[in-house]
Amino acid sequence: MTGEFDLIKKIIKKIPRRLQGNLPLGDDAGLLRLAAKSGVWVSTDTLVDGVDFRLGKLPPEAVGRKALAINLSDMAAMAVKPSAFVVSLGIPKSLSERWILRFYDGLLRMANSYKSACLGGDISRSRQFFATVTILGESGPDGGVCRSGAKSGDCIGVTGFLGGSILGHHFSFEPRVAESLFLRKYAKPHAMIDISDGFLQDLGHILEASGVSARLELESIPVSPAALKLGRGNSRKALEHALSDGEDFELMFTVSPAEKNKIDQLWHRFFPRVRLSWVGEITPGIRPIRWVCGGRPIPSPKIARNGFSHF
Amino acid sequence: MTGEFDLIKKIIKKIPRRLQGNLPLGDDAGLLRLAAKSGVWVSTDTLVDGVDFRLGKLPPEAVGRKALAINLSDMAAMAVKPSAFVVSLGIPKSLSERWILRFYDGLLRMANSYKSACLGGDISRSRQFFATVTILGESGPDGGVCRSGAKSGDCIGVTGFLGGSILGHHFSFEPRVAESLFLRKYAKPHAMIDISDGFLQDLGHILEASGVSARLELESIPVSPAALKLGRGNSRKALEHALSDGEDFELMFTVSPAEKNKIDQLWHRFFPRVRLSWVGEITPGIRPIRWVCGGRPIPSPKIARNGFSHF
Repeated sequence: MTGEFDLIKKIIKKIPRRLQGNLPLGDDAGLLRLAAKSGVWVSTDTLVDGVDFRLGKLPPEAVGRKALAINLSDMAAMAVKPSAFVVSLGIPKSLSERWILRFYDGLLRMANSYKSACLGGDISRSRQFFATVTILGESGPDGGVCRSGAKSGDCIGVTGFLGGSILGHHFSFEPRVAESLFLRKYAKPHAMIDISDGFLQDLGHILEASGVSARLELESIPVSPAALKLGRGNSRKALEHALSDGEDFELMFTVSPAEKNKIDQLWHRFFPRVRLSWVGEITPGIRPIRWVCGGRPIPSPKIARNGFSHF
Repeated sequence: MTGEFDLIKKIIKKIPRRLQGNLPLGDDAGLLRLAAKSGVWVSTDTLVDGVDFRLGKLPPEAVGRKALAINLSDMAAMAVKPSAFVVSLGIPKSLSERWILRFYDGLLRMANSYKSACLGGDISRSRQFFATVTILGESGPDGGVCRSGAKSGDCIGVTGFLGGSILGHHFSFEPRVAESLFLRKYAKPHAMIDISDGFLQDLGHILEASGVSARLELESIPVSPAALKLGRGNSRKALEHALSDGEDFELMFTVSPAEKNKIDQLWHRFFPRVRLSWVGEITPGIRPIRWVCGGRPIPSPKIARNGFSHF
């Protein structure tokens, strides 16, 4: 491995000028010029070797792609347009320069797809590889959908399929940026989150922040083929995966019934290949989630695991 | 150590609302509202246990303080007002919750002093403790001083003293935020950097980015008492520490001679306790730095080490 400044130069050389923000890279900070009266949204997320993935079991491009994708998903969760990011890497001596440059290949391909600029970064020596990406997003004066706005009577929507992401989706997922900006533009979601800790846990985050509860329809949960595969024909087990596996990186949001109708009319024109499910509705008060099946109350499905923990 | 969400709740509870930006903490992203037509500046810097410091040899508050201070110094380097930051921590299982909360005590005290809001963060499991802080700063339309603007004839100014920071200054330093904003307001520095890799190396960064060279006055280098102590009475060794030790976190900048006079008239009124030294001037062309002593050319001081590497 070459020295610090040499590696930084090689990394910068990979980044096209149009992906460097409003100032060429190489100074003590990067610059993003914002439209007037903007708000800037910030989020940060880290991948650690041996915790979130295993070096050597994956192409470096896939790790670089995911390091940015999980942050793009956080911007999608807020219905905010991602604009730019910085990258901090912890690099063990044993890791080759080629690995790092290929990591950047994957990351920059993603950056290019989502028109997000790399405003800078930092490399440190560490025993364990880690990659921290901090992302910035812009919103107009209306911008941003928080977890805390869910209202009684809202319909609960979910994009894509749930569960079993461990079989591959947690690396190959496409962050729901376009879907999220569509929702903000055409409907007005009251609350939104990206499903990273597991459906039930992330729904819990919305309910807790909003001071409400929910009624869920068992048959509407979009159980993924991967969850079915993990369940090995046992539909109860497959459902358990759908409800509690982490890293689906799908959107969960709540909207009024009127907005739901608007979305139903437009969704398939905009996103013909992305499933949209309505899984239940928000109910008043703080109490346990209730379940229905075929319109009738049923006991809550027994879930052995209480969601996914990254920690 | 408690679980992820529990620890996050305890951390958020420590952060006063006025230091949480424009949205209460706990969502997928934090929000910073900016004045109209602003530019947002971003920088990121990481501390890793065993590389940048040793856990157990330092109070956690000092580590937290430094994690933010090095980033504040990057904003000072650009003459940009720091506004907000996010924190990503890698936390080994062996580290106590109390250690992490005390780390935040030190960090938040610094955040309070510099009126910088904590917009969010992330915690991961890792074998080695690390702390990545990403900082955001705001500038008006005039804003930001880069490394690349040094002009032939400019005077080279340096704040404080250089060398020997290993004896304590690299943890106790005060980032030169106020000094930097003063310089941008009253003079117009052509180039600026914070001295983190060592005086000669960081001067080299300015010269390379600007395509110029420099003439330095040996007797004007502000050798710190700590560098003298490390030199043990050997003034050549002390000078070597001043020129090549890292992590001084002082400002180096270049201004026209007219602006230098303006600064000389005002500096001691604003910063009576901060030394300001004029160590030489920018010369045209790309060539080795020349040295003078008592107005006469001397050979370059021989420096065994070529600056400090964080990598």
